[in-house]
Amino acid sequence: MKFAKAHGTGNDFVVLPDPDGALDLTPSLVAALCDRRRGIGGDGVLRVVRSAKHPEAAGLAGEAEWFMDYHNADGSIAEMCGNGVRAYVRYLASSGLIAADTTQLDVATRVGVVPVQIGSDNVTVGLPVPIVGGESTATVAGLSYAGVAASVGNPHLVCAVADVAALNALDLSRPPRVDAATFPDGVNVEFIAAGAPVGGADRHVHMRVYERGSGETLSCGSGACAVASVVLQDVGMTPGTGTVAVDVPGGRLTITLDGDTCRLSGPAVVVATGDVDLATL
Amino acid sequence: MKFAKAHGTGNDFVVLPDPDGALDLTPSLVAALCDRRRGIGGDGVLRVVRSAKHPEAAGLAGEAEWFMDYHNADGSIAEMCGNGVRAYVRYLASSGLIAADTTQLDVATRVGVVPVQIGSDNVTVGLPVPIVGGESTATVAGLSYAGVAASVGNPHLVCAVADVAALNALDLSRPPRVDAATFPDGVNVEFIAAGAPVGGADRHVHMRVYERGSGETLSCGSGACAVASVVLQDVGMTPGTGTVAVDVPGGRLTITLDGDTCRLSGPAVVVATGDVDLATL
Repeated sequence: MKFAKAHGTGNDFVVLPDPDGALDLTPSLVAALCDRRRGIGGDGVLRVVRSAKHPEAAGLAGEAEWFMDYHNADGSIAEMCGNGVRAYVRYLASSGLIAADTTQLDVATRVGVVPVQIGSDNVTVGLPVPIVGGESTATVAGLSYAGVAASVGNPHLVCAVADVAALNALDLSRPPRVDAATFPDGVNVEFIAAGAPVGGADRHVHMRVYERGSGETLSCGSGACAVASVVLQDVGMTPGTGTVAVDVPGGRLTITLDGDTCRLSGPAVVVATGDVDLATL
Repeated sequence: MKFAKAHGTGNDFVVLPDPDGALDLTPSLVAALCDRRRGIGGDGVLRVVRSAKHPEAAGLAGEAEWFMDYHNADGSIAEMCGNGVRAYVRYLASSGLIAADTTQLDVATRVGVVPVQIGSDNVTVGLPVPIVGGESTATVAGLSYAGVAASVGNPHLVCAVADVAALNALDLSRPPRVDAATFPDGVNVEFIAAGAPVGGADRHVHMRVYERGSGETLSCGSGACAVASVVLQDVGMTPGTGTVAVDVPGGRLTITLDGDTCRLSGPAVVVATGDVDLATL
């Protein structure tokens, strides 16, 4: 079976080209492929399938030729993954499934059709604007950090720490404690510290994230969008608009909010392509 | 650049076919390839090179055509890796670099030439006999476990726990505390519990291992050899001889000691082959 390995800021994926939807992609096959030692390894599987060939996307076929069929590493279905769609589109262009000089296209996902711009370095995806919620706290190693909730489809809690040294010192090897009544389904917790100014951005922050169910990760696209929406609440311009550079452990994401859309931008690369021997999994 | 991903009982490797020794394999390239999210991912790199084409093995060329040039995931050179040589030989056979029906061959390594048998399921490598040493203890979560030291080139400490339930309950997310005077360079610590009898083996144990510098791993070939040598000390037959089935989290290894050699046997598979784009690393 053909595969590729791709990542966006360290959020990595096993890409399976299946234009005609012929693959029987079971949860156990997804989990075996994502096994980092006995399989290929990845945070999830991106099946590359034509919308017309996938039952969940067939109605969108005229609008967006390609459907991002995303699966979490444990085999469960995921609705959306911001870094995933960026890696997905990079694969489309590098594999020849779309013209190599394509600069923009629409991609079908389980949360709807999203617009994507393809640059030589960065791939940018337009996502729904995060909804900023109320205040709460997260506790790490006995210390409480004040935070603001934000929803990007999935729940986030954005907590500020004093500075980058304090951010780097956080022990995220165990889950932060959060208010179970506020977050009955758990929450992804982002910790942020202000960074030095960078060109082209209204704000610059460093971020670490603890993803519910996964632990600390190198990057989280929806988390960076949540962070941007919270950070831009108190900028001295139209509230909730502007550009935020978010440095995650896996690289830099840039988020632009204009009131209508949230554009998530950053590098996305296809590291390798090949054949996987299913009999060994 | 061509690559393969292979593993033996969950000890996984990036395999680089380089028969003529043309690759400039720098420590930073090794580390980038072994990066599990931004590269291919592996516990190390196995460069597949003819002995005659590698300066460290040129003198062995007549004896063993192929040299296992093993590198740790951090880019450092390693002398030997028991599961690595098993995966290496599986790759030789599956890639056509040796005849697919080869059943045995000698492989050059940094610790000398080792004999390898290739079976349909298992690959078996002959290693030096471990040297059993004195007693010491390892402490996990405040509880001390009595153990016996063994050297397989690298140092090991084999500690018995009461039963499989106690073994599974051990918290190996942090390093066991050991006697720094006895093990000035650190030590790999194996915890073992007796298992139900299995056919063809004199003893059967379950093992978990904490590898110095790596943390808990799915498998450790030299650790399984150390365990076998310690376990066979008190078997009611010629001391230090016999067969031990060792169940590690990544599968089953079988070790046979006959006084002269230590044969390490277990499954080894090539999961995938492909091309890696060095410009993305």
